[in-house]
Amino acid sequence: MGNSFGRLFRISTFGESHGGGVGVVVDGCPPRLEISEEEIQFELDRRKPGQSRIVTPRREDDICEIVSGVFEGKTLGTPIAILVRNKDARSQDYSEMSEKFRPSHADATYEAKYGIRNWKGGGRSSARETIGRVAAGAIAKKILKSVANTEIIGYVKRIKDIEATIDPDTVTLDEVESNIVRCPSAADAEKMIELIDRIRRDKDSIGGVVECVARNVPKGLGEPVFDKLEAELAKAMLSLPASKGFEIGSGFAGTLLTGSEHNDEYYIDESGDIRTTTNRSGGIQGGISNGENIIIRVAFKPTATIGKEQKTVTKTGEETTLAAKGRHDPCVLPRAVPMVEAMMALVLCDHLLRYQGQCTVSDRFF
Amino acid sequence: MGNSFGRLFRISTFGESHGGGVGVVVDGCPPRLEISEEEIQFELDRRKPGQSRIVTPRREDDICEIVSGVFEGKTLGTPIAILVRNKDARSQDYSEMSEKFRPSHADATYEAKYGIRNWKGGGRSSARETIGRVAAGAIAKKILKSVANTEIIGYVKRIKDIEATIDPDTVTLDEVESNIVRCPSAADAEKMIELIDRIRRDKDSIGGVVECVARNVPKGLGEPVFDKLEAELAKAMLSLPASKGFEIGSGFAGTLLTGSEHNDEYYIDESGDIRTTTNRSGGIQGGISNGENIIIRVAFKPTATIGKEQKTVTKTGEETTLAAKGRHDPCVLPRAVPMVEAMMALVLCDHLLRYQGQCTVSDRFF
Amino acid sequence: MGNSFGRLFRISTFGESHGGGVGVVVDGCPPRLEISEEEIQFELDRRKPGQSRIVTPRREDDICEIVSGVFEGKTLGTPIAILVRNKDARSQDYSEMSEKFRPSHADATYEAKYGIRNWKGGGRSSARETIGRVAAGAIAKKILKSVANTEIIGYVKRIKDIEATIDPDTVTLDEVESNIVRCPSAADAEKMIELIDRIRRDKDSIGGVVECVARNVPKGLGEPVFDKLEAELAKAMLSLPASKGFEIGSGFAGTLLTGSEHNDEYYIDESGDIRTTTNRSGGIQGGISNGENIIIRVAFKPTATIGKEQKTVTKTGEETTLAAKGRHDPCVLPRAVPMVEAMMALVLCDHLLRYQGQCTVSDRFF
Amino acid sequence: MGNSFGRLFRISTFGESHGGGVGVVVDGCPPRLEISEEEIQFELDRRKPGQSRIVTPRREDDICEIVSGVFEGKTLGTPIAILVRNKDARSQDYSEMSEKFRPSHADATYEAKYGIRNWKGGGRSSARETIGRVAAGAIAKKILKSVANTEIIGYVKRIKDIEATIDPDTVTLDEVESNIVRCPSAADAEKMIELIDRIRRDKDSIGGVVECVARNVPKGLGEPVFDKLEAELAKAMLSLPASKGFEIGSGFAGTLLTGSEHNDEYYIDESGDIRTTTNRSGGIQGGISNGENIIIRVAFKPTATIGKEQKTVTKTGEETTLAAKGRHDPCVLPRAVPMVEAMMALVLCDHLLRYQGQCTVSDRFF
Repeated sequence: MGNSFGRLFRISTFGESHGGGVGVVVDGCPPRLEISEEEIQFELDRRKPGQSRIVTPRREDDICEIVSGVFEGKTLGTPIAILVRNKDARSQDYSEMSEKFRPSHADATYEAKYGIRNWKGGGRSSARETIGRVAAGAIAKKILKSVANTEIIGYVKRIKDIEATIDPDTVTLDEVESNIVRCPSAADAEKMIELIDRIRRDKDSIGGVVECVARNVPKGLGEPVFDKLEAELAKAMLSLPASKGFEIGSGFAGTLLTGSEHNDEYYIDESGDIRTTTNRSGGIQGGISNGENIIIRVAFKPTATIGKEQKTVTKTGEETTLAAKGRHDPCVLPRAVPMVEAMMALVLCDHLLRYQGQCTVSDRFF
Repeated sequence: MGNSFGRLFRISTFGESHGGGVGVVVDGCPPRLEISEEEIQFELDRRKPGQSRIVTPRREDDICEIVSGVFEGKTLGTPIAILVRNKDARSQDYSEMSEKFRPSHADATYEAKYGIRNWKGGGRSSARETIGRVAAGAIAKKILKSVANTEIIGYVKRIKDIEATIDPDTVTLDEVESNIVRCPSAADAEKMIELIDRIRRDKDSIGGVVECVARNVPKGLGEPVFDKLEAELAKAMLSLPASKGFEIGSGFAGTLLTGSEHNDEYYIDESGDIRTTTNRSGGIQGGISNGENIIIRVAFKPTATIGKEQKTVTKTGEETTLAAKGRHDPCVLPRAVPMVEAMMALVLCDHLLRYQGQCTVSDRFF
Repeated sequence: MGNSFGRLFRISTFGESHGGGVGVVVDGCPPRLEISEEEIQFELDRRKPGQSRIVTPRREDDICEIVSGVFEGKTLGTPIAILVRNKDARSQDYSEMSEKFRPSHADATYEAKYGIRNWKGGGRSSARETIGRVAAGAIAKKILKSVANTEIIGYVKRIKDIEATIDPDTVTLDEVESNIVRCPSAADAEKMIELIDRIRRDKDSIGGVVECVARNVPKGLGEPVFDKLEAELAKAMLSLPASKGFEIGSGFAGTLLTGSEHNDEYYIDESGDIRTTTNRSGGIQGGISNGENIIIRVAFKPTATIGKEQKTVTKTGEETTLAAKGRHDPCVLPRAVPMVEAMMALVLCDHLLRYQGQCTVSDRFF
Repeated sequence: MGNSFGRLFRISTFGESHGGGVGVVVDGCPPRLEISEEEIQFELDRRKPGQSRIVTPRREDDICEIVSGVFEGKTLGTPIAILVRNKDARSQDYSEMSEKFRPSHADATYEAKYGIRNWKGGGRSSARETIGRVAAGAIAKKILKSVANTEIIGYVKRIKDIEATIDPDTVTLDEVESNIVRCPSAADAEKMIELIDRIRRDKDSIGGVVECVARNVPKGLGEPVFDKLEAELAKAMLSLPASKGFEIGSGFAGTLLTGSEHNDEYYIDESGDIRTTTNRSGGIQGGISNGENIIIRVAFKPTATIGKEQKTVTKTGEETTLAAKGRHDPCVLPRAVPMVEAMMALVLCDHLLRYQGQCTVSDRFF
C-alpha cells in the first residue's frame, strides 16, 4: 500500500534502486494530450545522478520508455506506463550495509516492518523511486500549461545557512538551470556550490530548503476539508525522501504577526477580478486556490548516508560502527528541485480534474 | 469530495457551523471496543467554544449523540455515526459578511469554487467541522491506548513570540490541562494568557505553534512511499483550519546541521531492542515509525476574522471595508491542541490497522 | 469498511435497524443543484415499510431531515447528510433471535466476523440500511435528469414464476406506481399480488426479478477496465440485500446465440448519430455506454426470515428450531424497485462526474 | 481511471494489445511470500493465445518478467511490477478496423469517450489486458493457499446449449486441465470442442457459462454493505471482457423457490462448527463468507469479432459492412477460466487482508 498518489490523475510508482528498474503507471490522464518521451526525459535529466560534480557520481542515463497509453504521440486516456531500467547498480558497495543499519536511514525501519529488505541498495526507499514521480509530473505540467498556462518553478532557497533572496513572482526556469545547484541567485549559488564541495570532501552531508512557486493557478482548486490544497501539497512534499518540514505562504514566520498584520486585504484589479494586495496566504485560502501565486517551502535534512564513521548496530543486534561506502549525494537539494516541482504539478493537476468533475455540470446546468 | 480521511480507519465529516448540526461517520472501527459518549464528550469539551475567557464566547455545549455503530457499550464493527447539533447560531452577526468577504478567510474562495456558500457563518470552513474529527479521534486514541499503550499529548509550544520549553518525553495531560491556554509551562502560560487577553481587547488576533508527541508508538507504522507516516501527518495537520506549516523532529532547524551532526546513531538497549541515542528523526525513518517518540510541530496563523477594520471587497465586486462582528477566537491555539491530537491519533490508528492488514499474515504464515 | 460507494459522487451510509436512526452522507455533489426534502421523501415513501398489505407491516414514516449541505434549497457542494430516525422498533420480537441464528440470514456471519451484533433487529444487514441509498439516489436522479434528461425506471419483471412482458423503451413511472407490486402490467400484477398474499398467509416468502432501464444516458460513461459500467452496476445490485444475480442486456440467455445472431449492428440515424439496430448489449459496450437504453435485471431470493419453523442452531452451538416472529416482507420485490433505481442512479451519476473529470479538458484544450 | 482493483491487495493493470507490452503493479502484497516467475507463468500459460486449435492462433509466449518487489525469491512488501512484452502484433489485420467499428465491440464507445483509440488492435479493451490480472491472481492464489489452504477452481459449465454436470465440491484442477475446453466432464468436453470447431469454420462465435468454486474459504470475509463479498465478486466478473451476467449460489433459479425451500438450515458438525445442510447461499450470507464453498457462475457472450460479414458504420459516419480479419477466439470460454479464477482470488485475498486489518486487534485486545 501507499504507492499511489492522486484521486483522478492517479500515479502508482514501482521499483527498487537495484533490480529490474523503476517506473510509474499514470491512470486518469485526459485523452489526446500531445506528449513525447523527450518531454519526459527533459525532467528526468534534471533529476538524474551524475549530472554534476556536486551530486552522486552514480552513472545512470535514466532513459525512459513509454510502454503504454500513448498512441501516435497522443495520450489514449488509458494508463500510461513508463519504465526506466536500472543500469549502474554496484551492489558490492552495499555488502556491509546488508548487516549494518545506516543511521537515520530507512534500513532498520523497513527491516522492522517487513522482516526483509533489498539490501543491495536503498531498495524502495532510494531516491530512484522519484523517477516515476518526475516522469508523471512532466505529464501533469504539460496539462496545467495547456489548460491554464500554469507554470511551476522550484529552486534552492537555502543550503545550510546560505540563504538566497529570490522573487518567486518573476523567477524563471532558465535562471534556475543556469547553475548546478539550481539556485537562481548566481552569487549565492557560487557559495552554495563551494560549501557542498567542501562537505563532500569531508565525507559529510548538508541539507537546506527548496522553495517552489506555481503561477497562473486557476481559482477554485482544492477541496474542503481534508483535501485542502495545502494539505495535499504538505503530504506530497513530506513524501519526498529526506524532507522534514513544509510551509505555505507566511508559514512558521507568519505566527509572529497579528491578524491585522497577516491578513491579505482584497482589492478589485483593472480587469474586475478579486485580488489580494499581499500574499501571506500563499495562494490558498480555506484550502482552495485564490488565483494568487502558490508559494511553498520544503526542508530537506542532510543526506543520511555519509562516509564518516558513525555508531550503529547490526541486524543481529550487535553494536558496531559504519563508514558508508557507495556513491551518495552530499546534498540532495539540487536534485530535489525537479522532485518538488513534480509533486506540486501532480497535486494541482489532480485538483484541476477534480474541479472539472464536481463543478462543470453546475456551471452548465444549475 | 475531500471530506473523508484514512484508509482503514476512515472518517467522513459533515455539517456547517449554522445549520442542522455537524458530525462524523467512522468506518472500519474494530469491533468490540468499549466506548462511551462520555469518553467522546471529554475530548469535545476540550475543543468547545466558551470554555474560557480567551476563546470565542459562542455558547455551544457540543453534546454528542452516538447514532449508530455502538451496541451495549461496544463497537459493532459497523459505521459509527456521531451527531452534534448546532445551538447558539447567531446568524445576524454574519449578515454583513453575506456581502463582504473576510480577508484571508475562505469566504471568497468558496464563492469562487462553488458559486454559493452558507454565509450565515463559516459554513463548512468553520472550525466547528473539527468536532467530527475530535470525536473520531477519541475513538482512535482509545484503540491506540488499548492495543499499544500509545499516548498522544499536544500542547501550546509558542504563542506569537512567547515560546515555552517543554520536554515532550515527560509532559502529561494533567500539565497541559492545568491552564486555559494549554501550555504545560505555568510561567509561560501566564504570559501567553495575558498576551491573548490584550490582543482580544485590541480586536486583533495572534497565532503560534502547537507541538504534539506520541509515545509508545509500535515500530513499523507508515507506508512507503506516498503514505509515509510523516506525509500522512503533514496532510492531517495542514487540513486543520489556520495551519500554515508542519515539522517533524528536527524540522527546518535540522537543515542547519551536517549529516554527521544530524543522524541518530543506533544502540542496543538493555532489553536488546534497537534504539537511537538522539531523536532528530522525530520517531520516523523512511516513512516508518522506529519506536522512538513521534514529535511534530504545527504553525497556526493568527485568526483571520478580526474586529479591526480592514479593506475588502463585496460579492458584487466593489471595494469596501469590514470590521467583523460575531464571536471569534482571538487565538485558536488553546482549542487547536485537541484537534492536533485527534489528527495524530487518526493517522496512527489508521496505520496500526494497515500494518495488521498487510503484515500479520506474514508473521504467522510466511 | 465497505460502507461507502462511488468515486466522485460518493455516499457513505450508516445506521442499524434498531438504534438512533439510519442515514447517509453524500460527498462530491455538484453545487447549486435545487433539491428539497420533499423530493427525497418521494423516493423514501416508495421504499418504506407498511405502504401496502403485501409488505412488512412495520410502521415507519421514514421522515428525512437534511442535516447539512443544502442552503436555501440549493446544494453547497459540501457533504449532504440526511438522517432518518428509527421509530417502530419492536425489539421484543427479536429476543429469540438473540440466541438463534435465522437460516440464510446475516446473523451467523456477522457473529463470526465481528464477535458481536445488534440482535435487536437485522442491525446493519437490515433493509433499513437502504434508506440512505434511496435518499442519495433521489439526488443522483435529479442531477441526471437536469444534465442529460436521463430517466431511470425499475419495475417487477417476475415474481416466482409469474413473468410479465414489459417494454423497457416505453414503460413509465406512473405505470409502475399504478399497483402495489410495482409491475407495470396490470394483469400480471394482479396475479403477483394474489401469490404474495397467499405466501404471506403461509408464513413463507418468495422472490423474483426486478428489471431496470435507464433512458437518455450520455455516450461515454464507464471506465475501462475494472470500472466498466456493467461491473459497477453489478456491484451496486449485488450489494442490495437478498440479491443473487445480475444480468445486462441479453445476459445469460445471450450465451445461447452465436456472435452473428448476438451482435448489435450499427446504423446512422436521421440525426447522423451512430446507433444500433438491436440492443443485446444493454446499452454498454466495452464497459462504456453507447447511448442506447441501459437494461439490467436483478434476481432477488425469497426473504430469509419466515414464520415457518426451520432447523437452526444457537450462538452457543446447540441445534434447535426457529419460527421467526416479527414483521417481515413476504416478498422484497415491490420495495426493491426504488432501491434498484437508486443504485443505478448512483452509478450513472458517479460516472457522469468522472467523465467530466477526465474528458472535459480534452474537449476544450487538446 | 478505473484500472485498479482491490483495497489492500491492490492491482493496477496497464498496456494495450499492440504496443510496448502489458502488465500489472501489485501494491499491498504481504512481505516474505515465496513467489517465482514460474508460478506466475503457469497461470499465464493457461490464459495465453495459441494454446490449442479452439482458441485464437495469435502467437504470444506471454513470458513474464518480475521487474520489482521480489528479492531472492521472496516478496518485499513493496510494489510487484510484472511486465509481458507484446510480440506477434499483426496490426495490418486491423487496418480496415481503423475506420470501421466492429459491432458489439468497444471500438465505437472508446472513440465516443476518448476521441482517440489505438486501432492497431483491441487496445485497452483487448483480452490481453487480463494478463496482468492473471499474473496478480497467481500471487493471490498463493497467499490464500498458504494462509487458509483455500483453493479456487474454475471450469466451463456450458458452451452454448451444451451444459455439463459437475460437482463443485470435488472437481480438481487436473480434471479441468485434462482437455482443451477446460470442461471437467470428458464427454461434454468432446461435444463442446466439436461445436467450437464447427463455429470457427463458420467464421462465427459462441459463448457460454464459466462456473467457479472456492473451497476452504475462512469465515468472515466480506464487508457490509457495499463491499459485500458477492458484490465484489460480481464487479470482478463483470469487469472481464465479454461477460454479461453473474450469479451466486442459487442465482436466478433460486427465485423460483419459496423461502422455506431456499433457506440453508444450520447444523453443528462433528467438530462443533456451524454448518449448513444445503448451500443455496453459495457460501456467502449477508455479504460475508460462512465457510461453505463459494460458488459463482459467469455468462460470457459470443465473441464480438467475427469473420462473417455484418452491417456497421465508419468513424466518419457512413454505413458499410465488415468481415473482420485477424485472429480471434471463436469462443472465449476456455481462456476465460483462468481469468475468472484470478478475479475470484483477487477478491478473496483482498478481503482476507481487510479482515486482518479490522478484526485482528479485536481478537487480541478487545
